[in-house]
Amino acid sequence: MKFKQTLPQIDLPLDMIHLGIGQPSNYLLPSKEMEKAADHCLSKGNNFFLAYGEERGNSNFRGTLAEFLTAQYQKPVDPDQLLITNGNSQALDFICTLFTCPGDTVLVEEPSYFLALKIFADHKLNPVSIPVDDNGLMTDVLEERLETINPAFLYTIPTYHNPASVTLSLKRRQELIRICAQKNLLVVADEVYHFLNYSDDPPPSMGTWNNICPLISLGSFSKILAPGLRLGWMHTSEEVIKKISGSGLMVSGGGLNPFTSEIVNSVISLGFLKTHIQRLRNVYRQRIEIFCDQLKKYLPDQVMFKVPKGGYFIWVKFLDGVDTNTFRKETQKQNVDFYPGNFFSHQKELKNYMRLCFSFYDEKILAEGARRLGKVISDNLS
Amino acid sequence: MKFKQTLPQIDLPLDMIHLGIGQPSNYLLPSKEMEKAADHCLSKGNNFFLAYGEERGNSNFRGTLAEFLTAQYQKPVDPDQLLITNGNSQALDFICTLFTCPGDTVLVEEPSYFLALKIFADHKLNPVSIPVDDNGLMTDVLEERLETINPAFLYTIPTYHNPASVTLSLKRRQELIRICAQKNLLVVADEVYHFLNYSDDPPPSMGTWNNICPLISLGSFSKILAPGLRLGWMHTSEEVIKKISGSGLMVSGGGLNPFTSEIVNSVISLGFLKTHIQRLRNVYRQRIEIFCDQLKKYLPDQVMFKVPKGGYFIWVKFLDGVDTNTFRKETQKQNVDFYPGNFFSHQKELKNYMRLCFSFYDEKILAEGARRLGKVISDNLS
Repeated sequence: MKFKQTLPQIDLPLDMIHLGIGQPSNYLLPSKEMEKAADHCLSKGNNFFLAYGEERGNSNFRGTLAEFLTAQYQKPVDPDQLLITNGNSQALDFICTLFTCPGDTVLVEEPSYFLALKIFADHKLNPVSIPVDDNGLMTDVLEERLETINPAFLYTIPTYHNPASVTLSLKRRQELIRICAQKNLLVVADEVYHFLNYSDDPPPSMGTWNNICPLISLGSFSKILAPGLRLGWMHTSEEVIKKISGSGLMVSGGGLNPFTSEIVNSVISLGFLKTHIQRLRNVYRQRIEIFCDQLKKYLPDQVMFKVPKGGYFIWVKFLDGVDTNTFRKETQKQNVDFYPGNFFSHQKELKNYMRLCFSFYDEKILAEGARRLGKVISDNLS
Repeated sequence: MKFKQTLPQIDLPLDMIHLGIGQPSNYLLPSKEMEKAADHCLSKGNNFFLAYGEERGNSNFRGTLAEFLTAQYQKPVDPDQLLITNGNSQALDFICTLFTCPGDTVLVEEPSYFLALKIFADHKLNPVSIPVDDNGLMTDVLEERLETINPAFLYTIPTYHNPASVTLSLKRRQELIRICAQKNLLVVADEVYHFLNYSDDPPPSMGTWNNICPLISLGSFSKILAPGLRLGWMHTSEEVIKKISGSGLMVSGGGLNPFTSEIVNSVISLGFLKTHIQRLRNVYRQRIEIFCDQLKKYLPDQVMFKVPKGGYFIWVKFLDGVDTNTFRKETQKQNVDFYPGNFFSHQKELKNYMRLCFSFYDEKILAEGARRLGKVISDNLS
């Protein structure tokens, strides 16, 4: 098998299977739907979305999005509790600008999304980590930590965690809300994988608690439609929305993405988003099944992972003392790659883990990747 | 005349003529061109622009933009010296994140764009102002000030200044570059009005000096195509581009606006941008002629202004001691409004000025606005 899959942000060597890449496959990018939606939107003769928009996002798009979220969450979402963003990376960056100063402490999960850690570093913030177990963020540790520190916010990935693949249980969500309400601690919940469930529905989105504690739920079209749109939303209280939409960037720019918003308005109205999410769920569910089977077949018994229930990732655990970096050169030589666990730890720990992603390659390539990876690991651990 | 002109960011009372508004008229937003360009772009079956993009912007769009700028500037622009942004407000905000810390001094012009001042305030920066005269930023004052302070950057609007409407002369540009090269001071040049010249060409874009001193030229499609696109560019050195494109936001988000970029790629390739700019020049040139005639007719002799050579604004000067805020309530009562000079001063000075904008209304309404304004001012100054 010789192939080359290239996207603008990545350029891999011929035949390389890079299981670190957290992007959708090329063929899962909905170009036909975008074409139809753009035509639907632009042929109406409207042009308000070409002007400076409302700071929080134009009201008709927020209305459509609120309806969509209401149906998905099966709980009412108010359009006035939504603020349109350029995706979660931009939202996170902007939250740092408006809610922190350099040197502030921010709480992060251990592990956490490695590029969120980079955004916090760009803002010269000081991350302190709270561990994650099979039920997500360990709220008892959080509560203990909050006795001695006063962070600017807590950054959490509650559902189908990147990289740990775990989901914060309902009980823990309630605990988290109770603790943060009591301490008046802002929760920034990155819920980018919330809609990518492959079996049961996840617990309610954190956004639905925004009236109880200071909380911003970050949603995005990157994983459920297309990353290149740079479109997402905050679901939060009107108080927070007022603060953010009064900022210089918002008033000067007039909303973060009015043009793309209106095309995605058509994507939703035409029913394409719902269908596309269903398609993604089916594709990823099937990939997981095959990929996990092959991993089980080829990985030594001492290497452990759980079959993901949603999201993009498999978080593979090796015995204590193993450092997955030590055999990365060899896997690369065998044309298979991954991200080692320390990428996801702000203290560069968790070296006995690796993150594997199944969003980018189809079953056949994933199976081959599992085979190549298993061979190198077996050789190295034996 | 009873009318109501509404856009998402603004909602004016019936019949109000708000001469403060710095937006293009509704009918100048190129909806037909955007429809054709989207069709041209999306019907090709490509979808790379739906994926995470290159951090600095996808190369084919940077190529097209570089060609366009090369033709306009009549000097070669290298695609590798361009970084695609979400427009100048976002770019400015992000420069603050990456190049400043709270408490840092930034140099601004007196007057300056009021929402840039708001962005600097959001970043807790400390603005120090350098005056502007008929030839733009007073470089001799700048040089003197730099003997005692060490600012993070200088923010300047070199061409068709907002609000002062002046243009930095070629000699001053050379002076500015010399001084900033010597002091290693980063120049952030907001060149959003550069292409909106109504008589002669302006001096060369500041971007063309980026190899001589630390300099970021900010360009935007907001004033030459449509603000709702949230699309612009930095023209700067490869060193600066490397720093910015290595940031967490860029690596995580994969470029700031790949989808809209590719549609605008078609706008440029199809020749629409050139034609649209020509149309804007013709429309605004005609508006200025009529508006200035009417202002001359209705404003008292002691009130002075220069006929703008480009951009969006007329900067009207009253005698020392006059405060234009004092008659703003009365003008509002008479259904005409403006922005008083102190909006554009970080020290809230320049009260004896007002900014009038001719981009939003057609000739007939501008003429009526001039009449209404002239009447209130005459009554108040007599």
